[in-house]
Amino acid sequence: MAPWGKRLAGVRGVLLDISGVLYDSGAGGGTAIAGSVEAVARLKRSRLKVRFCTNESQKSRAELVGQLQRLGFDISEQEVTAPAPAACQILKEQGLRPYLLIHDGVRSEFDQIDTSNPNCVVIADAGESFSYQNMNNAFQVLMELEKPVLISLGKGRYYKETSGLMLDVGPYMKALEYACGIKAEVVGKPSPEFFKSALQAIGVEAHQEGQSPPVVLAAPCSGNWALLWTAPCESSSRDSTADRRRPRACSCGAVVSLGCLDSAPALTFTAGTTWARPSDEHHPEVKADGYVDNLAEAVDLLLQHADK
Amino acid sequence: MAPWGKRLAGVRGVLLDISGVLYDSGAGGGTAIAGSVEAVARLKRSRLKVRFCTNESQKSRAELVGQLQRLGFDISEQEVTAPAPAACQILKEQGLRPYLLIHDGVRSEFDQIDTSNPNCVVIADAGESFSYQNMNNAFQVLMELEKPVLISLGKGRYYKETSGLMLDVGPYMKALEYACGIKAEVVGKPSPEFFKSALQAIGVEAHQEGQSPPVVLAAPCSGNWALLWTAPCESSSRDSTADRRRPRACSCGAVVSLGCLDSAPALTFTAGTTWARPSDEHHPEVKADGYVDNLAEAVDLLLQHADK
Repeated sequence: MAPWGKRLAGVRGVLLDISGVLYDSGAGGGTAIAGSVEAVARLKRSRLKVRFCTNESQKSRAELVGQLQRLGFDISEQEVTAPAPAACQILKEQGLRPYLLIHDGVRSEFDQIDTSNPNCVVIADAGESFSYQNMNNAFQVLMELEKPVLISLGKGRYYKETSGLMLDVGPYMKALEYACGIKAEVVGKPSPEFFKSALQAIGVEAHQEGQSPPVVLAAPCSGNWALLWTAPCESSSRDSTADRRRPRACSCGAVVSLGCLDSAPALTFTAGTTWARPSDEHHPEVKADGYVDNLAEAVDLLLQHADK
Repeated sequence: MAPWGKRLAGVRGVLLDISGVLYDSGAGGGTAIAGSVEAVARLKRSRLKVRFCTNESQKSRAELVGQLQRLGFDISEQEVTAPAPAACQILKEQGLRPYLLIHDGVRSEFDQIDTSNPNCVVIADAGESFSYQNMNNAFQVLMELEKPVLISLGKGRYYKETSGLMLDVGPYMKALEYACGIKAEVVGKPSPEFFKSALQAIGVEAHQEGQSPPVVLAAPCSGNWALLWTAPCESSSRDSTADRRRPRACSCGAVVSLGCLDSAPALTFTAGTTWARPSDEHHPEVKADGYVDNLAEAVDLLLQHADK
């Protein structure tokens, strides 16, 4: 494996996930992960562009940012790429009126959206609102449609709260997919469009062959992987063997790791702090380029080798 | 297509599904499907062996049978093959102590089962008990286990109540499979073992090549297909093209239809009364051998051609 200096040279930007990287959510607003407040501050003082890129969909960006500020983070609403605003844009562009299967905390993000006479379903990490009644309502809306549209804010399997592991939106998305025989459109990580819009916001071009790539640091959907990688790659095909040496769609978890690790300038950290279970370290598909214990250590490496 | 007489000659037994074939469940005990009470009576007066084969998992067999008797059906508890007793047998044989994610109505079937310190999860059509809290409890039990065991009573997508379509256990099974990265063991239809035990109970041998097959009549897992077919076939492979001409595992829905329709003596009815949606008639995988409007019409054909 190439030394860090070679792998990190030319990095221009960093996408930071929030949950599991900056803090662990939980009762009373959650707790900051040791060293992360200062790590963010150091990144922002460097020449590296920084953007926060989250699949958080239990609360609005305003509420999330307020919470992080109270934990000591230097972060503003304008620096956050989140799936709810991206979904609203799709709904408006396509004239869709959603049945919202979401947490009350994020409902304000949809204030400008017409929800009368629904012709699609938007599903997010609804927590306790994932009642049988609400799931069945969403199911019945979809079954009434000739071409059912299901938009999912992320597809994470679970996340870690201070009190333990919690089911994320992904399992419920899969439940509706199976019930209706459909495929959801995922907004948020690991959608390439989502990462691209985050990169656009900081004026960093997606990786192109032969050029130094930007760095993406994120804890993917399930909350149990923190990946730091050079992305996004460009192809969108998933797993044909012939295609494995070409760069892939920008995404998190399995796909980006398989893809980007095959391409020369790829880089993947796995931050130890976000392990949900020790066995996740031996994930069958995700192979890290290197391991760090937390964001602070990743930022140490970045500033040492990339900030020149 | 061969005439009914040829296709039904030699039939020795009939497995009848209950929901969507005998009655539609719903408020106040549901309603009998027109003609089904008399159709069951006529079948039982014939030389054909009859067994009821259901994935019902919201109520105990005793409660289900009581309800059907009140609707006028000639049926006893001893004539019903249901997944809960089959699951109890597996739990006992394998020393498993389940966390039960089930409907209160079926809990009495598990009275003899040790549920302390769970080392597996049993999931059934829990209805309103599919709360986020209960799903998360099941998820946490599974994630604590080195080798998570999830037993699902059926895998139906949805069923029809008099008030509309309702999510069945299948979507919730898929949710836990995805969350934990595991595969559930399905007890009940479409498991071949389940059909075989039903055939054993009426002393009818599974179909063997070159012999006349027994007839199986059932509405598969999702409740929106009623199939009458010659089964069970024997191979368990699912969908390799090379294998399509050989008989398949006995199951319902897509697998048995693909398989058994390719084998010479196959027979599939689709009973019109159980359509959940008109579009289901054009299911991509399930091709019926013939169509009937209801059980009464299927029994007419059976008695005319098979009861000789």
